[in-house]
Amino acid sequence: MTDLSSLSELAPPPFATRHIGPDDADQTRMLEAVGFASVADLVAVAVPEAIRSFARLGLPPAAGESETLAELRVLAGRNTLLTSMIGLGYHDTITPGVIRRNLLENPGWYTAYTPYQPEISQGRLEALINFQTVVSDLTALDVAGASLLDEATAAAEAMTLARRAGRTPSKVFVVDADALPQTKAVLRTRAEPLGIELVESDLTGELPDCFGVLVQYPGASGRIRDFRAVADAAHARGAQVVAAADLLALTLLAAPGELGADIAIGSSQRFGVPLGFGGPHAAYMAVRDGLQRQLPGRLVGVSQDVEGRPAYRLALQTREQHIRREKATSNICTAQVLLAVIAGMYAVYHGPEGLRRIGRRVHRHAVVLAEGLRQGGVEVVHDTFFDTVLARVPGRAAEVVAAARENGVNLRLVDADHVGVTCDERTEVLHLEQVLAAFEVSGTVLADLDAAAHDALPGALARVSDYLTHPVFHSHRSETAMLRYLRRLQDKDVALDRSMIPLGSCTMKLNATTEMEPITWPEFAGLHPYAPEDQAAGYAELVGELERWLAEVTGYDAVSIQPNAGSQGEFAGLLAIRAYHTARGESDRDVCLIPSSAHGTNAASAVMAGMRVAVVACDDNGNVDLDDLVAKIEKHRDRLAAIMVTYPSTHGVYEETIVDVCELVHEAGGQVYVDGANLNALVGLARPGEFGADVSHLNLHKTFCIPHGGGGPGVGPVAVRAHLADYLPGHPLRGGSAVGPVSAAPYGSAGILPISWAYIRMMGADGLKAATEQAILSANYLARRLAPHFPVLYTGRGGLVAHECIIDLRQITKETGVTVDDVAKRLVDYGFHAPTMSFPVAGTLMIEPTESEDLAELDRFCEAMIAIRGEIEKVASGAYDRVDNPLRNAPHTAGSLVADEWGHPYTRTEAAYPLPSLREGKYWSPVRRIDQAYGDRNLVCSCPPLEAYED
Amino acid sequence: MTDLSSLSELAPPPFATRHIGPDDADQTRMLEAVGFASVADLVAVAVPEAIRSFARLGLPPAAGESETLAELRVLAGRNTLLTSMIGLGYHDTITPGVIRRNLLENPGWYTAYTPYQPEISQGRLEALINFQTVVSDLTALDVAGASLLDEATAAAEAMTLARRAGRTPSKVFVVDADALPQTKAVLRTRAEPLGIELVESDLTGELPDCFGVLVQYPGASGRIRDFRAVADAAHARGAQVVAAADLLALTLLAAPGELGADIAIGSSQRFGVPLGFGGPHAAYMAVRDGLQRQLPGRLVGVSQDVEGRPAYRLALQTREQHIRREKATSNICTAQVLLAVIAGMYAVYHGPEGLRRIGRRVHRHAVVLAEGLRQGGVEVVHDTFFDTVLARVPGRAAEVVAAARENGVNLRLVDADHVGVTCDERTEVLHLEQVLAAFEVSGTVLADLDAAAHDALPGALARVSDYLTHPVFHSHRSETAMLRYLRRLQDKDVALDRSMIPLGSCTMKLNATTEMEPITWPEFAGLHPYAPEDQAAGYAELVGELERWLAEVTGYDAVSIQPNAGSQGEFAGLLAIRAYHTARGESDRDVCLIPSSAHGTNAASAVMAGMRVAVVACDDNGNVDLDDLVAKIEKHRDRLAAIMVTYPSTHGVYEETIVDVCELVHEAGGQVYVDGANLNALVGLARPGEFGADVSHLNLHKTFCIPHGGGGPGVGPVAVRAHLADYLPGHPLRGGSAVGPVSAAPYGSAGILPISWAYIRMMGADGLKAATEQAILSANYLARRLAPHFPVLYTGRGGLVAHECIIDLRQITKETGVTVDDVAKRLVDYGFHAPTMSFPVAGTLMIEPTESEDLAELDRFCEAMIAIRGEIEKVASGAYDRVDNPLRNAPHTAGSLVADEWGHPYTRTEAAYPLPSLREGKYWSPVRRIDQAYGDRNLVCSCPPLEAYED
Repeated sequence: MTDLSSLSELAPPPFATRHIGPDDADQTRMLEAVGFASVADLVAVAVPEAIRSFARLGLPPAAGESETLAELRVLAGRNTLLTSMIGLGYHDTITPGVIRRNLLENPGWYTAYTPYQPEISQGRLEALINFQTVVSDLTALDVAGASLLDEATAAAEAMTLARRAGRTPSKVFVVDADALPQTKAVLRTRAEPLGIELVESDLTGELPDCFGVLVQYPGASGRIRDFRAVADAAHARGAQVVAAADLLALTLLAAPGELGADIAIGSSQRFGVPLGFGGPHAAYMAVRDGLQRQLPGRLVGVSQDVEGRPAYRLALQTREQHIRREKATSNICTAQVLLAVIAGMYAVYHGPEGLRRIGRRVHRHAVVLAEGLRQGGVEVVHDTFFDTVLARVPGRAAEVVAAARENGVNLRLVDADHVGVTCDERTEVLHLEQVLAAFEVSGTVLADLDAAAHDALPGALARVSDYLTHPVFHSHRSETAMLRYLRRLQDKDVALDRSMIPLGSCTMKLNATTEMEPITWPEFAGLHPYAPEDQAAGYAELVGELERWLAEVTGYDAVSIQPNAGSQGEFAGLLAIRAYHTARGESDRDVCLIPSSAHGTNAASAVMAGMRVAVVACDDNGNVDLDDLVAKIEKHRDRLAAIMVTYPSTHGVYEETIVDVCELVHEAGGQVYVDGANLNALVGLARPGEFGADVSHLNLHKTFCIPHGGGGPGVGPVAVRAHLADYLPGHPLRGGSAVGPVSAAPYGSAGILPISWAYIRMMGADGLKAATEQAILSANYLARRLAPHFPVLYTGRGGLVAHECIIDLRQITKETGVTVDDVAKRLVDYGFHAPTMSFPVAGTLMIEPTESEDLAELDRFCEAMIAIRGEIEKVASGAYDRVDNPLRNAPHTAGSLVADEWGHPYTRTEAAYPLPSLREGKYWSPVRRIDQAYGDRNLVCSCPPLEAYED
Repeated sequence: MTDLSSLSELAPPPFATRHIGPDDADQTRMLEAVGFASVADLVAVAVPEAIRSFARLGLPPAAGESETLAELRVLAGRNTLLTSMIGLGYHDTITPGVIRRNLLENPGWYTAYTPYQPEISQGRLEALINFQTVVSDLTALDVAGASLLDEATAAAEAMTLARRAGRTPSKVFVVDADALPQTKAVLRTRAEPLGIELVESDLTGELPDCFGVLVQYPGASGRIRDFRAVADAAHARGAQVVAAADLLALTLLAAPGELGADIAIGSSQRFGVPLGFGGPHAAYMAVRDGLQRQLPGRLVGVSQDVEGRPAYRLALQTREQHIRREKATSNICTAQVLLAVIAGMYAVYHGPEGLRRIGRRVHRHAVVLAEGLRQGGVEVVHDTFFDTVLARVPGRAAEVVAAARENGVNLRLVDADHVGVTCDERTEVLHLEQVLAAFEVSGTVLADLDAAAHDALPGALARVSDYLTHPVFHSHRSETAMLRYLRRLQDKDVALDRSMIPLGSCTMKLNATTEMEPITWPEFAGLHPYAPEDQAAGYAELVGELERWLAEVTGYDAVSIQPNAGSQGEFAGLLAIRAYHTARGESDRDVCLIPSSAHGTNAASAVMAGMRVAVVACDDNGNVDLDDLVAKIEKHRDRLAAIMVTYPSTHGVYEETIVDVCELVHEAGGQVYVDGANLNALVGLARPGEFGADVSHLNLHKTFCIPHGGGGPGVGPVAVRAHLADYLPGHPLRGGSAVGPVSAAPYGSAGILPISWAYIRMMGADGLKAATEQAILSANYLARRLAPHFPVLYTGRGGLVAHECIIDLRQITKETGVTVDDVAKRLVDYGFHAPTMSFPVAGTLMIEPTESEDLAELDRFCEAMIAIRGEIEKVASGAYDRVDNPLRNAPHTAGSLVADEWGHPYTRTEAAYPLPSLREGKYWSPVRRIDQAYGDRNLVCSCPPLEAYED
């Protein structure tokens, strides 16, 4: 035992060895199967040399997990947690511990994917329908969606919905002058490219001709407006009424639907979702009957499975952007599922009486404060209010705000003469005392004020209607009951904590614990987005570093992390292009070329940015047809604004011609937008900003490890070359910019940025590159193993794919009747989430293994697919009935398998345990295949009555 | 809307409303069923007035959850986290994030009960067998148990094992002078009452006659002793050799079993378990073949289920204290399951090569440090060592230690001339520099030292044998794979996050998130137990308050939280009685009266404390037979030391005569020990210290919300009246006491005390009382609902039970052949953990609902029991076969139900879904009924080869 290993040789293995599934031995076996001696050899063939970037990324050396946590604790410590009574759409709240631990901090919830496969998503679908019920009940509107990105973009979506639904040619949208400042700013950003004229109004005079009007309820100033007259006037003009309403206020105030609103939007943040320096939070939208088919974003509905049992699934999907492309109602893909689920569970936990008590307590604190101010000789501007007291202190506002900050409380500096004070669930008498002291009010006794003060809600707007009468809001009041409810729902779903989720284009990789832990630390979770900058020094440093690192990884010059979804990043990128052309006097450049293989979102985003879409054809190999591109460029040369391409392509192939494409477009004066959806195939190997692109958005929830959260949050930073840097999104509360904000909060979903920061910090340049190499190797390994059984549709050089592969079932379907749907649902019986179905090519499955799956799991998936291929053969040979077979009947529930009568021509064992390994820890789908059409015909989007579940 | 609710009326509902399951409406319905108008009325009848304490408990007013977390953050902030290089059996370590979040912070793991029902415990049993395999492999001994309480008590258990197993009449046990100080102290505490003579020896001279010898390997001073000669000498004398070995050192050093040890013990703390200011940690014990039936504590073994599939369960249970009583090998009940599982998972995560690397790195740091000291002119005492460097600095030790502390590092002050420095997994070069600076060594370059220094392990003791060759230690290396392994195991088990666990005498109540969160905060989790007191000010405050509050709740004058299990609390309490008698010159008082209904542990503890047990009979109602008590007191009057009674009795009844019992015993000069196991029936209503008892132990893991952890940790404080206060356990490193320590660490399992602190802080006097009242009401509600179906065995006044009830199946078994076992296993099919089986009366089930279960869950349990009663009726009537029926065949796995052939005379539906509600979220047992005898006949206690699982 006289080894002389040095300390450096004994250092802990880098985090990359935990993030990347296959170890060296696995990798060697996989390389053998694919026919290469090294990953370097594989990459040299797979990735076109023209785009390669051979320099090592300029990132700090990889840190270990403990070191990274220690560094994040230092950053967290540089944020200062004061009590924020700023309001403006962000309110401190108490996340019940049982929800924080068992939902927000539980990979069973946060690693789940969007519930496109409803049979394995019943848990989160039920949670979302709870959320929809909360919104629908509190707003008294008929149908509520499953969340939007933030209140400001929800307002913008409501504006465009109003325009689509309006019965008037007017291009005017009227905005309440008392709307939240970020809402007004985002509306401006969104209105301009669409030719909508925004008119700000105090809504006291006559309403102008318009297609819609937005009322903030209560207003940013605290005022509560009875907007019935406004609504009548709007309706008389054929316009829609949008109420931007505070959900907690609605526990006490008449509902928007009762006052004439057609649409209600707002934030559900104060229902238990941490402030997180501005996000992520779930916005909501609810609409009256008649508008539901116009709703942007996702909508959960009740349908039934083949046995007629109630089952949840996403409703009305044909209206979504991935199908309607440039005709889409919105470019929104991601929702804020995890946060909507928290908000819904907060309502389950508190019930209507609890929410009402919280609302009343918040109000009561505001009332007591107002009384104190008045008694102290301070003018209170509004007689009625919910949670916000607007105080008039001529010339002294800044001084009061500064004094309050000294006392540990942030207030809102409205202008030189006004201070806003907003109460929330965490407000205590102590805070009121601190605030009164800042106003130099002394000698008041809070208990006396409390005894003296009358409530300040307008009598005419008292809430009289019930809400949350469904039993789910009355049955889980003890922590034990709540814990079990969460567990029961979680157990219905498949997330990454059970098995591989091989969704092509979604990059379902590891969301490591070390990346996740910091986001619930109070110093990151508790900060108000408008807290003074010196209180957010830790965030500033983290955001700055992350933006620099992302720029380095992508080869761009500047990054904004503001867009809180990929769709918003696309929009921001296109706005930058648009602003650039305009600044150069070429504002008529408005044509956006988009290959036919593109994500539907691209087209929808282009339309939102005021562009016209021209489609470029793809050749038989799925690549951009260069001849058609040249022709389209010629046709639109003078109007050419941009091309949007995804790289590697949505076909999972590194197109050889990307550099040519960029040059052709540039030569014609256009800008090149490279969609970063597939960046996981490039990091460390190629940089879009270097190989010809001008702008990209990135999906931090794909390549940079933010978990999918069951369908959000996402983060979609936009990255640009230097000539576009001046056109990145600004924010009214953080200094302006040539281009307005695309998200409500200055730093978008700041609260989850520690995840991506930690990932890059722990991987370093070498780890990131190794991850990409492994992702490519794993996809090619899968393609090789599956190719003898299923044709692989597109390949590039050397017959290789990039980081995902498409298998083609069209011929199989033609010959046997077995569809991609059948294979997807049968995979559930094998314990797997299906690959991406029929995108980008109908009748195919797109498989992306990511680098995080180890060889054992990849093989388990291959064995399932090969076994399914064997089942298909039995259908082909007649050994299985063409209709009554395990594929068509999948998924099989335990209940259906344990039935006393078994009427199928195949055995129960064939149905349940087609592979012996399934006997260990089998996942049981809670419902059988769901009838999508039934649910759309019989649209139910809130909690169904319990009788629906009776046999 | 002109309500004038004041702020106080709008305050959040107290935590008690979340902790207590039934709300007011539920409670009213339950009172109706039991026939009382109020809980006060119920309690007035149920609880004898003679013991009632009507004063409100003197506790701080109940705090809310947020307030409590804030207060705990303040306490945490008063602890100072320095780097501790103190060693002495406690070493900093890195808990992998994936294990912390998904195991230590996951109620699926921490709320589970001891795996007495193996069919629903396969997950944690597999985890424990991993732990046993780690221990058995690293020690090279044949059989390892599933953990003991701490290293020092494990040493004491090894001492008594050696005595039982020895082939010599010697009463001498030889202890290595280089053993850990706390080990020596606990050995002294334990040896004295048993008449064992402890001889401390440096083991260099001739070994005296003895029945055993304990060698510390490596020693506390860092020295590594080749103890083969000592072992040979011991064996020649018929003595057993105990090695107290460091598991991490064993990755590099020859194993104890290879050097002649018969028994190995030690701590597994440094395998990923936080320091926690001394605990809880899992100790281990392994023995050579031939001693396994003498092993104290629990042992997991592999057996098979009725289908012949491998299945885990606790082995050799007939040797445990709950069966053997005063003939038991030990009084140990609780293990440290949660911590053993963490340690086992740490090995799964790192694998043998990872553990070896960590061991080598720790060693290398020590080597480099020693080289630096030598080059700096400091004498290093030992030439060979593993992690600890003993430096000789004549007269300067205190100065060096102080200087290191200034630099942020705690060292061990051995004596005026010696300083100990111990490296661990978190040691970095920076720390070595800080230490060298403290020794005033300068000018050394660490890299040069690293290059120059040779390893310092004795060549003759190099590890050559393999370890951890089982695939489980090679298959979960990526975080994704580890996450899924943890989820898969968790999903096999029933814990409180799924359903009620109605275990009589175990008090499986809510373990609230707010109580649990602080224990993984670094400021509580990261402290070394021997850190200087000023660094542990937060802990000191918390411990002090908790001890005061517990004294108030129980009516005693002083409390020690040192005992880290109920059994240790009992032992400490009896030692106090013994010391008291001795101090009064009555040292021949050595008879302990114990009613026949007592927990077996009581008798075992009495024997350990050097007492003789005299059993007092119970009458037909299960109460202490007063006539027999009087007779026994007469018989033993002069030798009477104590009586140990449980109150309410283990029969779940408030005995009316308890005050008389106390008086009779006191009158005869004895002391009264009231076992606090059933304290959940007393808190806020009666105080043992007030109604006549002199001493009690409490089970914080029952009444005070520490989760059971799947079978530990427990905490068992001992509470005494003033005359016994001087005899509470002391600790050699925290100032002495008349009685030595009973646990290794000064404050026992300090790391989990925030749980009980938070519980009391949030409940306050009123909440605690309400919880007790509800527990009594819930037990009586169950008794009333079940009584028409199953006879309730014992009741007290008004036909009422206390907080649990016993239902009697003996007549049913006689008539139908259906046993308690059948009912217990059938409950699994209904999704429930069984009640306590055959304790305290064979052929019965004891049900304790606790206050945390809401009415819906209580009813769900009743419906299951009533449905089972219906099934029993079918057996009785002949509708079901007497052998082939759903009861006898329970539990049914999904696999058995989905079989192609169904050979049973009852239907699959009857087997799987006897109640329709089971179709929603049914729990599936992973194995069928386990053959206990098979496993004991074919004892396998480490990971079975994978082939065992092949069909």
